Amino acid sequence: MSAGMRLREAKREDLPTIVRMLADDPLGQQRHRVEDPLPQDYYAAFDAIAASPSNALYVAEIDGAIVGTLQLTFIPGLDYLGAERMMIEAVRVARHRRNAGLGKAILAEAIEIARRRGCQRVELTSSASRKDAHRFYERLGFTASHVGMKLMLK
Amino acid sequence: MSAGMRLREAKREDLPTIVRMLADDPLGQQRHRVEDPLPQDYYAAFDAIAASPSNALYVAEIDGAIVGTLQLTFIPGLDYLGAERMMIEAVRVARHRRNAGLGKAILAEAIEIARRRGCQRVELTSSASRKDAHRFYERLGFTASHVGMKLMLK
Repeated sequence: MSAGMRLREAKREDLPTIVRMLADDPLGQQRHRVEDPLPQDYYAAFDAIAASPSNALYVAEIDGAIVGTLQLTFIPGLDYLGAERMMIEAVRVARHRRNAGLGKAILAEAIEIARRRGCQRVELTSSASRKDAHRFYERLGFTASHVGMKLMLK
Repeated sequence: MSAGMRLREAKREDLPTIVRMLADDPLGQQRHRVEDPLPQDYYAAFDAIAASPSNALYVAEIDGAIVGTLQLTFIPGLDYLGAERMMIEAVRVARHRRNAGLGKAILAEAIEIARRRGCQRVELTSSASRKDAHRFYERLGFTASHVGMKLMLK
């Protein structure tokens, strides 16, 4: 059930819960270290996101419990006569809350944030292996129009 | 020939030249209006990019002449223990300078910017129809690991 769900900006003390959700996923577990205390680099990244006017980290809450997360990035550009777009990434629903429409509700809220801000489009990239995710986003109206390419430096 | 090419941050007065290059392309021509004077929205977008610590618009110059352009965006995130990544977009080489290795030289410079800044990876999305571009980026070491999805709001 997504009733009563609300998105709010993440606080520093939410970070362990957020990282646990990000890591709880076949791809995520290769990209995270869930330790207590959390590696300090996570806090530095959180502070960079919080300090950036172009970025926002959100959590989804139901009755005060964190049930999901996502990051939004607003990018100014020249295409379409100088349109701003919003990128969505690091979307996760807590494992015990999956398959209840929460992902859809979180995405709908995020898209509404882009709309209110006047963004011309919303974009995201999803690993080629996440076929279920692609279908999920297509049902929300996204089209798989692009190829996402990556060059690892570290 | 890419000898003597250098990247520098774009100035406001470069904007008509940049927009002409962006528009001079099968997909770009649907997304731009090349008029004199340029629609004011372009200048607003330029100012937003210039004011953003996360974004930079570059031109490539040879002997003082603008021969290419690209935009870089730096995005903090939690993946990979809080790594920053660099996105590349709106890459264009002036038509009369194409097929001379300039695109490769511009990309190499951009990747070097990411490296010096300590970015963990470089990302870009390319329209699914731009098969030549995908091969170009693959030769530079990029892998087509993701699907890029888009939802138009306007």
